[in-house]
Amino acid sequence: MKDAIKQLNDIDNKLHAINHAQAIIYWDAATGAPKNSVEGRANTLSILTGEYYQTLVNETFDNLLKELAEQKDALDFVTLRKVEEFRNEYDKIAKIPVDMYKAYTADQAKASVAWEEAKEKSDFSIFAPHLEKLVDYNKKFIEYRGFQKHPYNTLLGDYEKNLTTDELDEFFSELKHTIVPLVTKINASHVKVNNDFTKLSYPIDKQEALNKDLLKAIGFDMDSGIMAKSVHPFTTNFNRHDVRVTTRYFEHNPFSAIYSTIHEGGHGIYEQNIGEALDFSTLGTGTSMGIHESQSRFFENIIGRSYPFMAYFFPIFKEAFPENLKDLSLYDFYLAVNKSEQSLIRIEADELTYSLHIMIRYEIEKLLIENKVLVKDLPALWNKKYEEYMGLIPENDAEGVLQDVHWSEGLFGYFPSYALGSAYASQFAHAMRKEFDLSEDLKKGDFSRIKDWLRTHIHQHGRLLNPSEIIEKTTGEPFNPKYYTEYLKEKYSEIYKLKD
Amino acid sequence: MKDAIKQLNDIDNKLHAINHAQAIIYWDAATGAPKNSVEGRANTLSILTGEYYQTLVNETFDNLLKELAEQKDALDFVTLRKVEEFRNEYDKIAKIPVDMYKAYTADQAKASVAWEEAKEKSDFSIFAPHLEKLVDYNKKFIEYRGFQKHPYNTLLGDYEKNLTTDELDEFFSELKHTIVPLVTKINASHVKVNNDFTKLSYPIDKQEALNKDLLKAIGFDMDSGIMAKSVHPFTTNFNRHDVRVTTRYFEHNPFSAIYSTIHEGGHGIYEQNIGEALDFSTLGTGTSMGIHESQSRFFENIIGRSYPFMAYFFPIFKEAFPENLKDLSLYDFYLAVNKSEQSLIRIEADELTYSLHIMIRYEIEKLLIENKVLVKDLPALWNKKYEEYMGLIPENDAEGVLQDVHWSEGLFGYFPSYALGSAYASQFAHAMRKEFDLSEDLKKGDFSRIKDWLRTHIHQHGRLLNPSEIIEKTTGEPFNPKYYTEYLKEKYSEIYKLKD
Repeated sequence: MKDAIKQLNDIDNKLHAINHAQAIIYWDAATGAPKNSVEGRANTLSILTGEYYQTLVNETFDNLLKELAEQKDALDFVTLRKVEEFRNEYDKIAKIPVDMYKAYTADQAKASVAWEEAKEKSDFSIFAPHLEKLVDYNKKFIEYRGFQKHPYNTLLGDYEKNLTTDELDEFFSELKHTIVPLVTKINASHVKVNNDFTKLSYPIDKQEALNKDLLKAIGFDMDSGIMAKSVHPFTTNFNRHDVRVTTRYFEHNPFSAIYSTIHEGGHGIYEQNIGEALDFSTLGTGTSMGIHESQSRFFENIIGRSYPFMAYFFPIFKEAFPENLKDLSLYDFYLAVNKSEQSLIRIEADELTYSLHIMIRYEIEKLLIENKVLVKDLPALWNKKYEEYMGLIPENDAEGVLQDVHWSEGLFGYFPSYALGSAYASQFAHAMRKEFDLSEDLKKGDFSRIKDWLRTHIHQHGRLLNPSEIIEKTTGEPFNPKYYTEYLKEKYSEIYKLKD
Repeated sequence: MKDAIKQLNDIDNKLHAINHAQAIIYWDAATGAPKNSVEGRANTLSILTGEYYQTLVNETFDNLLKELAEQKDALDFVTLRKVEEFRNEYDKIAKIPVDMYKAYTADQAKASVAWEEAKEKSDFSIFAPHLEKLVDYNKKFIEYRGFQKHPYNTLLGDYEKNLTTDELDEFFSELKHTIVPLVTKINASHVKVNNDFTKLSYPIDKQEALNKDLLKAIGFDMDSGIMAKSVHPFTTNFNRHDVRVTTRYFEHNPFSAIYSTIHEGGHGIYEQNIGEALDFSTLGTGTSMGIHESQSRFFENIIGRSYPFMAYFFPIFKEAFPENLKDLSLYDFYLAVNKSEQSLIRIEADELTYSLHIMIRYEIEKLLIENKVLVKDLPALWNKKYEEYMGLIPENDAEGVLQDVHWSEGLFGYFPSYALGSAYASQFAHAMRKEFDLSEDLKKGDFSRIKDWLRTHIHQHGRLLNPSEIIEKTTGEPFNPKYYTEYLKEKYSEIYKLKD
């Protein structure tokens, strides 16, 4: 058995190395590669993907996994989890015919190009035939892979293990009943948040210095990670000692960079605090999209847009840009980063309305997989839902159904994790508050207890625990959206002086 | 046979992809990776190296190469060359026992660490036992691989195919007889070059802009490459559309960056102009260290330190730093970049004395391989040779035998290509001058004819032609060091007003 475990670890380590190589190529593409490098990168990435596939899917490895699974009571926990996770991944990939998967990858690439053009010209018809293909592929994948109760569950499970439409229907229904009326009331509120000072000039070099200090302050280790610039902020991790985050700067909107930094910092801190036992293993990373997003949203919103944090950050910000903040009070500063309004663009949405954007995408994806809507009818459906939930109608498809990159990459079932993450974050915060008073730490800019708590309960486990296991172990109950809806109600009722 | 060629190309493409992944990891390490990333990088690189080895060295591939070699008259030229080159590489690696090679790699890593410490403390004894090991390994490798006439030839051939100690003995003997007396005469010359203006302040941001423009001007394509900063300037290439060069800036020495940029630009332009037929093949890169260095030295010295080039560049430089160049004439400017003096440090040496540094290393390496000197006696031997050829004795080992990184990486047989490159460059320049007058183009800052000529004769061939084939085809004769010695004699006699 010792020998079998060594073989397993060697394969795990090799897959980890291939992931590392691919991730660094993507990182490079986003942060520095020259314009004409596209083709060479695609060639190398496709060879590495093929190598990953061949390393994972073959009879020898299949047999090794079976052999180890038969002796599972004798396995240590880490090995057991590896066997389970690889079995999962193996079956997921092996059930789909290789040729179909290759054709899918090629069609994905074409769809991405078509989506870019379609968005640029705001013409959904350019993207529609490609999207149809990608949806069809995913339906076929579900057929091959099988499903429990609802076909969409198979896709959801790729990003959030065991997540079901039943849970999500309930979750989004709660959200709808909380957020939609709140948005209407905020619209009618006498409180009008003035954030004009955020539109003044904030020199980029000063912003850069401020964001770097901020990233360090919240607990990101600059010896085991770096921060760079990219068009869209993101985080990537090669191992816990090499985690990369990016942000982007706008001269007339300093909070764009600041909240990107805090958000990506949350992802990055998660990855830097994975347990040492998982070094160079594919299990040595965040356990799911939803849990990952819970960490970024926890830092960005629960902490980063809280009053105590603003009390800490206000003098720092003021010192960096004294001319722009002459007569501003701390409370104005706090209000400015919590301004809520109906919006059409997901990535520009505020904390409150963000989940409505996700809900719309969830409902549409479910209908697509259920064959209840045709791709050609998506723009109309999209606009109808935005009118219903948000009270706004997009003027064109570029700011409507074409706004997100995800579908062009075949990512269906991914969006819900964004909203789940926010809800998980509230549930974690509730559990944390039982142990200590966050506010006191935040006011002082002391993030050490918070970071320790997150590491102990969440980060260190990597993929050793599933999302639901982490939530139950950490908070003492299964996922419960009421912590999120109550948090939102309380926060926004207070800000906008709403009455029940 | 069609099938066999496809198999060959697939393996070639895979090896190319592994090279790409490794190169980008090295690039990242030199340009941005965080401090603690060392271990993760080492792990991934060693797995990729293992994958490269397994892809290349196995019975199936061995048989494929044999099968294709048997039908070599029916092969197209590119395929034929692939078969030859892979056969070569296969035999080179396969003859060495895997375990020995692994131990070597591990000992190399330790030697690098020891060398850094030894250099820092200027204490050769820290490095000596490691160097002994590396020398012993290389001697054993030669035993396994066999050799023609002289054991050192096997190592030389790794960097410059078919190069022999006979040729190098003759080459360096000619150099010695030319350069050593020239250096003595320059020492005694009444011409004293004043380069005080180069020690004024040159703000880094202005230097950066100037160097970027310069790199573009000489013909480096910024859509198919980038320039970054690193501690030691270098060039790396993933494919002809993705070539990376670095430079470094010193506020009080603008010519350090400028000549690094031109030098690395020469390497980079070579890689960007490899023929399309070699895309994604391991043959799609420069053919040898020597030919590569001929391109960088051609740009750096033959062009970059020539009077016509300085006539073009002087006004540009003056516009960037007008305060620092008030009373300077073009001729003073030209003299400043051609100042020659005896020196102890190779990488700071001027064009004339540079090859003396290489000669000393060549002589020592040869003695090591011939068992005619012991590692422990190297510092004394080093100092003796510097006194003899350069008229200077190092004050300590850090500025003596410990100055270069190469031996700590097991690179023996590599140094000579630096000097060869300069000599090749002179021979190429002589051939080029038969076709057109470089001076006219350089004065105008028009590098297009020069670049076309280099592409046609040298760059496009990639590894399809060996160094000696390129030299003969391009210049009509075998390598002939007299073009180099005559060039040096003429140039420096004129600058320093020397009489025969």
